[in-house]
Amino acid sequence: MVRLYLPDLLFAEGRAHAGAGLLVGHDGRVMGIAPAETVSDAEIVRLAGKALLPGLANTHSHTFQRLFRARAEGRISGGDTFWTWREQMYRAAGFVSPEDIYDVARVTFLEMLAAGITVVGEFHYLHNDPVGQPYADPNTLALAVMRAAESVGIRICLLRTAYLRAGYRREPHPGQRRFYEDGTNYLRSLEALQHAAAGRPGVTVGAAPHSIRAVPLSVLKEISAFARAKELPLHMHISEQPAENEACLAEYGQTPVSLAAEHGILDSRTTLVHAIHLTDAEFRQVAALGSTICSCPTTERNLGDGIFPADRTARLGIPVAFGTDSQAQIDILEDARQNEYHLRLQQRERGILDGIGGEDIAARLFDSATAAGYRALGIAGGKLAAGEPADFFTADLDDLAILGADLDSLAAQAVFVLSRSAIRDVAVAGRFVMEDGRHPLAAEIRSRYRAVQKRFQEEE
Amino acid sequence: MVRLYLPDLLFAEGRAHAGAGLLVGHDGRVMGIAPAETVSDAEIVRLAGKALLPGLANTHSHTFQRLFRARAEGRISGGDTFWTWREQMYRAAGFVSPEDIYDVARVTFLEMLAAGITVVGEFHYLHNDPVGQPYADPNTLALAVMRAAESVGIRICLLRTAYLRAGYRREPHPGQRRFYEDGTNYLRSLEALQHAAAGRPGVTVGAAPHSIRAVPLSVLKEISAFARAKELPLHMHISEQPAENEACLAEYGQTPVSLAAEHGILDSRTTLVHAIHLTDAEFRQVAALGSTICSCPTTERNLGDGIFPADRTARLGIPVAFGTDSQAQIDILEDARQNEYHLRLQQRERGILDGIGGEDIAARLFDSATAAGYRALGIAGGKLAAGEPADFFTADLDDLAILGADLDSLAAQAVFVLSRSAIRDVAVAGRFVMEDGRHPLAAEIRSRYRAVQKRFQEEE
Repeated sequence: MVRLYLPDLLFAEGRAHAGAGLLVGHDGRVMGIAPAETVSDAEIVRLAGKALLPGLANTHSHTFQRLFRARAEGRISGGDTFWTWREQMYRAAGFVSPEDIYDVARVTFLEMLAAGITVVGEFHYLHNDPVGQPYADPNTLALAVMRAAESVGIRICLLRTAYLRAGYRREPHPGQRRFYEDGTNYLRSLEALQHAAAGRPGVTVGAAPHSIRAVPLSVLKEISAFARAKELPLHMHISEQPAENEACLAEYGQTPVSLAAEHGILDSRTTLVHAIHLTDAEFRQVAALGSTICSCPTTERNLGDGIFPADRTARLGIPVAFGTDSQAQIDILEDARQNEYHLRLQQRERGILDGIGGEDIAARLFDSATAAGYRALGIAGGKLAAGEPADFFTADLDDLAILGADLDSLAAQAVFVLSRSAIRDVAVAGRFVMEDGRHPLAAEIRSRYRAVQKRFQEEE
Repeated sequence: MVRLYLPDLLFAEGRAHAGAGLLVGHDGRVMGIAPAETVSDAEIVRLAGKALLPGLANTHSHTFQRLFRARAEGRISGGDTFWTWREQMYRAAGFVSPEDIYDVARVTFLEMLAAGITVVGEFHYLHNDPVGQPYADPNTLALAVMRAAESVGIRICLLRTAYLRAGYRREPHPGQRRFYEDGTNYLRSLEALQHAAAGRPGVTVGAAPHSIRAVPLSVLKEISAFARAKELPLHMHISEQPAENEACLAEYGQTPVSLAAEHGILDSRTTLVHAIHLTDAEFRQVAALGSTICSCPTTERNLGDGIFPADRTARLGIPVAFGTDSQAQIDILEDARQNEYHLRLQQRERGILDGIGGEDIAARLFDSATAAGYRALGIAGGKLAAGEPADFFTADLDDLAILGADLDSLAAQAVFVLSRSAIRDVAVAGRFVMEDGRHPLAAEIRSRYRAVQKRFQEEE
């Protein structure tokens, strides 16, 4: 069935339109933009009083970390440092059963939909059972997360993560017992997971060597070669904190990005997560090799990682995508505005990213929040252009944050003020997965999550 | 009629309670906290599945600036600097009729309620007609804003602002023609406004010399003496940007805070707005004199003002309140978390404010978002303790951002993740002004605002 989605304002093909609808084919793909009166044989879906915008891309997520949201801040966690945060993370990682992982992932994916997110890159690094042994199927937990996404209706790229060691010359850490595999088993499991995903709509797989710290160079090169042969995206944490750079220097005599670049790891399918503490030469290497950077400012401000130099990457033409990472907050548009705002705080100027490369600031940030994320995950989408999947969300134009938005200001209103309270409907592949703020499974998903949270608190 | 408001979780008297209700007298004041079974002769208002928390205080607001929200960012305003922002501000200031001011204030106050705010300090500096002449009643515009607050049901302290000049040795600026008065007329109007507010529930008045730049020292001293005699709060912008300090040094040979302190302007009824660029000695003066600082981080990050040193003020015991200022976003809890998060970005550590003075970080930030703001406006409230007005909001515990919140984590969930989508009911003086997200006048308020916005865009 061909449908014409007809909102008051439509953001498609990279700009805002009034009086036009989004024509979507029976295959869930965009056919084009058309005024209602020119379309005769389509079902018209009226979205009066709403704006329709491309679905947001969450390029970097660890769903299980939702379990200790706001529970590693201050007194309730007995002090509030990066290390107390990591202890909570290890506790959650040690706690969850396969069913718990499914339940926590479902509630987190549901929250993502409610925030207008239509695709998630789940950087998944829990593989073993609670005592650190592989499950009979070493993809047990990854498959649970995939099923959670399918159940909720969000598109997923499962970035299966390789985590081989605590770090250079470091003993294995008991908190990481569920992460460890060797390189051979990792590649075998990744291939099996790719087979498991084949033919499942909205599900893809990517390679994710955790970091230079956790994956020795020799294995990193194998993973990279494998990903290239299989045409998989490759995601990796890099230079999130200065300590990581120092450890890499000690082991290899180079910092992470220059090491990875020299060994052929970086190309246009590669996404570097965080990438805050890079030298100018390293940013130039990233630009030359066509890799994407995924910035996660709501998490980075929570963890005290530092300010991402988005002005330098914009001038070099490096694509930037966003991720909710630790789930401190799930709000990709807040991430987008922080990309600019943190530089304003640092440089005491406005409009830092405006006009770079001739691009308007709102257009740039909105593209990062949508198309750049889809690209980084190896999935077509993010622009609502012909042939792309019809992944979108609607915003209530009566919502007080964006009331008065018009053709000229729609992108800026979305990037600078849109709050979750405005988001009403979410469609993936042309099918509503949330309508008027309601998801058919919400009550069950919440109640199962509450039970897990309660057990997690009682265990403490 | 005595009422017992009975939520699942109650945050009152500075901490969270389960299984207890808030007992509110017929005068709209809190009588105490009580379990349902101990109360016999009260109407029980069940708030099942909700948390009840003290209403948030918005200590610094310029409502008319809502008109150009997200319209001074990038291409649509022809470039994006502090000066393009100021041009938009002057255009809005020149544009609004008394009726427009009323309509814009109403929609902005409505948005504040929807964000859990129960009291606003409106720092109001538009006084003259569009050509710069006083209205027959020089309080015409201030009274329009007061009526807007009464119509919507939010508590207001109208901080009538004195704006005498563009700055030291500066010619009057045409964009400021609606701001200017002389000191004598200002004091006369302030007194008249105080009389006009007398006996109106939820309406009070304060003195607000705009800044050291806009009010010469001699007049500042008169205003301060007047405020002291009348027991009014006194609010003033101070040291928002380094340029302001330099101008003050040039005129008086001192920076603003030390000048104000030396001349007896600062006391416990004084609130200094922004106060970012102070010396250590100045912060010690503020602490010694018992003044409050109002920080507005969502605006300060938008304007590129710099990072407020909340760790220094916390160590000195200076009370900090929050304001939405330019209305870039209306989210006092986001302001609260930025108070901490911007320091984490700068210092690359977590838990910067945690434990200072023995106080938990969430408790500190929540107190700033509530009680400190009420105090700064000279209004009892913010703790939901006996004798205080029953100003509160409820949050839906099914909301996905805070799902799983419990007794231990309620304050941290509120401060670090609560989003507007969770806020359901708002009460001022024990009376619901918003119920289940609905306000009785919302449709009319929106439609009138849209008409003003449309004229404002067409004029451009």
